Amino acid sequence: MNLQDSNPDLLKMPDVQSSEDTRHIAIELVGIRSVRYPVMWHEQGQTPQGSVAEFSMMVSLPAEQKGTHMSRFIAWLEDHSQDLGAHNMVALYQDMLTRLHAPQGELSFVMPWFVHKTAPVSGLKSMMDYQMGWTISGPADLVATELEMLVPVTSLCPCSKAISDYGAHNQRSHVTLRVKTLAAHNPIGAQALIDIAEKQASSELYGMLKRVDEKQVTERAYDNPKFVEDLARDVAAGLIALKQQDRIAGFCVKVENFESIHNHSAFAQISG
Amino acid sequence: MNLQDSNPDLLKMPDVQSSEDTRHIAIELVGIRSVRYPVMWHEQGQTPQGSVAEFSMMVSLPAEQKGTHMSRFIAWLEDHSQDLGAHNMVALYQDMLTRLHAPQGELSFVMPWFVHKTAPVSGLKSMMDYQMGWTISGPADLVATELEMLVPVTSLCPCSKAISDYGAHNQRSHVTLRVKTLAAHNPIGAQALIDIAEKQASSELYGMLKRVDEKQVTERAYDNPKFVEDLARDVAAGLIALKQQDRIAGFCVKVENFESIHNHSAFAQISG
Amino acid sequence: MNLQDSNPDLLKMPDVQSSEDTRHIAIELVGIRSVRYPVMWHEQGQTPQGSVAEFSMMVSLPAEQKGTHMSRFIAWLEDHSQDLGAHNMVALYQDMLTRLHAPQGELSFVMPWFVHKTAPVSGLKSMMDYQMGWTISGPADLVATELEMLVPVTSLCPCSKAISDYGAHNQRSHVTLRVKTLAAHNPIGAQALIDIAEKQASSELYGMLKRVDEKQVTERAYDNPKFVEDLARDVAAGLIALKQQDRIAGFCVKVENFESIHNHSAFAQISG
Amino acid sequence: MNLQDSNPDLLKMPDVQSSEDTRHIAIELVGIRSVRYPVMWHEQGQTPQGSVAEFSMMVSLPAEQKGTHMSRFIAWLEDHSQDLGAHNMVALYQDMLTRLHAPQGELSFVMPWFVHKTAPVSGLKSMMDYQMGWTISGPADLVATELEMLVPVTSLCPCSKAISDYGAHNQRSHVTLRVKTLAAHNPIGAQALIDIAEKQASSELYGMLKRVDEKQVTERAYDNPKFVEDLARDVAAGLIALKQQDRIAGFCVKVENFESIHNHSAFAQISG
Repeated sequence: MNLQDSNPDLLKMPDVQSSEDTRHIAIELVGIRSVRYPVMWHEQGQTPQGSVAEFSMMVSLPAEQKGTHMSRFIAWLEDHSQDLGAHNMVALYQDMLTRLHAPQGELSFVMPWFVHKTAPVSGLKSMMDYQMGWTISGPADLVATELEMLVPVTSLCPCSKAISDYGAHNQRSHVTLRVKTLAAHNPIGAQALIDIAEKQASSELYGMLKRVDEKQVTERAYDNPKFVEDLARDVAAGLIALKQQDRIAGFCVKVENFESIHNHSAFAQISG
Repeated sequence: MNLQDSNPDLLKMPDVQSSEDTRHIAIELVGIRSVRYPVMWHEQGQTPQGSVAEFSMMVSLPAEQKGTHMSRFIAWLEDHSQDLGAHNMVALYQDMLTRLHAPQGELSFVMPWFVHKTAPVSGLKSMMDYQMGWTISGPADLVATELEMLVPVTSLCPCSKAISDYGAHNQRSHVTLRVKTLAAHNPIGAQALIDIAEKQASSELYGMLKRVDEKQVTERAYDNPKFVEDLARDVAAGLIALKQQDRIAGFCVKVENFESIHNHSAFAQISG
Repeated sequence: MNLQDSNPDLLKMPDVQSSEDTRHIAIELVGIRSVRYPVMWHEQGQTPQGSVAEFSMMVSLPAEQKGTHMSRFIAWLEDHSQDLGAHNMVALYQDMLTRLHAPQGELSFVMPWFVHKTAPVSGLKSMMDYQMGWTISGPADLVATELEMLVPVTSLCPCSKAISDYGAHNQRSHVTLRVKTLAAHNPIGAQALIDIAEKQASSELYGMLKRVDEKQVTERAYDNPKFVEDLARDVAAGLIALKQQDRIAGFCVKVENFESIHNHSAFAQISG
Repeated sequence: MNLQDSNPDLLKMPDVQSSEDTRHIAIELVGIRSVRYPVMWHEQGQTPQGSVAEFSMMVSLPAEQKGTHMSRFIAWLEDHSQDLGAHNMVALYQDMLTRLHAPQGELSFVMPWFVHKTAPVSGLKSMMDYQMGWTISGPADLVATELEMLVPVTSLCPCSKAISDYGAHNQRSHVTLRVKTLAAHNPIGAQALIDIAEKQASSELYGMLKRVDEKQVTERAYDNPKFVEDLARDVAAGLIALKQQDRIAGFCVKVENFESIHNHSAFAQISG
């Protein structure tokens, strides 16, 4: 896969991508995917965090053009991968469209996101890993931005608790919160979404727990049973509140419980 | 996760799922996912084919109901997993909605699909594996059905061929054809979609090739170079024809080339 | 990748694989992997079960030979994939070596394996999926056979139970039992390994549970807490007994708990 | 999962892990796995590189001890994850054993590793991602260290080239070089292993290529055809040379070609 160049050495080489296409079929999205690059993410009010992101970078292509110029996506990564953040994603996306001479496209990436959490009783600190994803899309003058956080939590089954003389099955669950962000005065960030999921879960997770902490999270989960439906609704309620405050323009929450009594998952989804 | 029962032994057990919910938030989709079940698929005009499918089974839940009855999805699988086919998927989906007392939902599954292909010169036979996926969704009286086939093929780069004195980079590619099917006189099936992708690719793949065959597929690919954009457009043209013949109601084609000169993929997508 | 042929049409084609190699480096294992084929597995005393297996098929290659004949592995699959079972795996492996003119090699495959389980109180039946793997290796006259079963179960933490006023964290766990099988009078089979893991776990898993069943599995797990170390030791004890009865020649058990209070796994391994 | 503590608040809590075990079965390896942590890797002679690693951390446990102290592994990560390098891995492993009061164990981790490569003709720079893995194991006074690099390359089939009038099938391949490292005067590092694989492959890969570069890599691959056996042997020859120079104590090379004419891989493996 390759590309048009202004390099004079290339003038004698055929430029197949730039030739005219006669099939009259426009391409919605064309580009590259599964590109791993080291990144530096600048989260508002925090020290920048280094991570490794996997990118998907695409643009639309008009019916009359045979191919796009794939290497320009990598050139964009070379220029911008160390300076990513919510504050400049719209401008960086517009720069991608400009480089590709495209009216619209889709830029998305996911990366591990780490928070140094404090164990609830012992106060010991350890890293907890989440997954942060961004999707920037649409025409250059009407860019849409979406943030998705995958937050692993504990869920404990209310039915199991209610019908059993003791105990209750519980398990790790994934709460995925996807929001349409707004270029607001006080834009939504990763931590706000993590907080909603962890507050509503039966319990939150930690990298390191001592016994005093383990007692606390065990009892917290038992005191706070939630069906997959409950967790989806309670997280949705938090997102509805953010929408009413004009901090997000829309949301979708997905909850998946990796059931400890079955070999399959329970799942619930709410959009708003 | 559990469920309402008419079993008299259960009358004294609390039925938490059936209690009333006061949060006033309806759930779009709730159910189970990542359920593996052995299946028998009945493709029109063929001997039924056994495979192993992974299911996702979900329904909508009104705001006033606390939980759904997860075990009923498995009961559906017990009753129907050996008798699946395009001819009865709408009725089976309606049965799922009835069992769950739900107005709408989404049933989807993917499975390996095998075709006994014949090598192009030697005539030797071997299995080629594809992936077949179905999604059935919507209200009981307006069911939408979608078939998705993932067809692995060879793509050979036209630019690489044009600019090089000899050779051309090529690689394995995935062509994913997703179509909205119609309850037509002559409904679309897996093989029709496989045929479109394999005919348009630089070359098709085979399980077993002898040297006489390898010569043929090597030269076929070199004679038939395609960018990721070309392959998407040529497959789209085949799907546009099916739409014009009223054999499908819509489509989306995605092509991913696992580039042999990069460590990332080239990608193109067209819907219609 | 291709192969030597006796086909007269091929005589004029160069046979690169069969040429002599001058680097003086023998190859331990060469062949194909990630080959999916539909299979029929014949388990002693049961109706044969259809599944889809992923194969890895390899042989050793002497220093003086340039390449192996890859298509012969697929020819083996064409001939044998519908007639696999513990009773004939040694003979089928020897046939693979004969076809490839190889003194030794390694044949391995994994497949979903289904058991129609009965819920503990309601008596309802549903499928539970395991993973079965076989590895056959070594010289033709001293073949080694290994069976590996991955059995998903529930584990409940004894520490969490002991220190908490109520509740105890629990989660899904994978118990992987790998055994060197013997051509015994009463050879070990998949179900014997599943039984050991499910009996020793805090609880076993089921596809479908009604509320009466859910109460039973919840209380069973709470009555039966096990650390990852306990579960590894208790399963190892069962395998040591099998070894003492000369039903297996050796074993390795691995237990992985997908911790519900952390975002990582606990793991233990014992060989014998 | 939790742990012994010297904290006075914990004295009244039962310490189940530290109780005596009466089953008389020692545990080979027990610990945690699938732990993601941000790391800083110090490669000799280079600026330290930040990445995200996935860790597996295990120790042996004597027969008489019921459980290990899982949180200590995370404490080790908190203390050392920003200061990892070949120069201190033995000492850090010994520290892990000391913290766990264990005579031996196994510490392993994998991480994306990036090299800023220069395109062969245009001279443009872009990142190429590899995977680096380390395994440190054995008793504290006889520690073994292994480095594994996964290097993606291009392979082009000699048979396809020889028998076809034009073209030759090629594809992306993974060359995995695993070496037992030595605390040598001039220890082996990631780049030396990358160099061996990229030099021996039909061609190497790049993040960004212009047309002048694409012509070069296309022709280089066609000029340099290699079977999976050839690539394994040629990389093995390079590793044999390193062993003869006492820079490594042993090796295993695995090559997997994601065949562009089949839907499966070709594979070869050599140890020495």
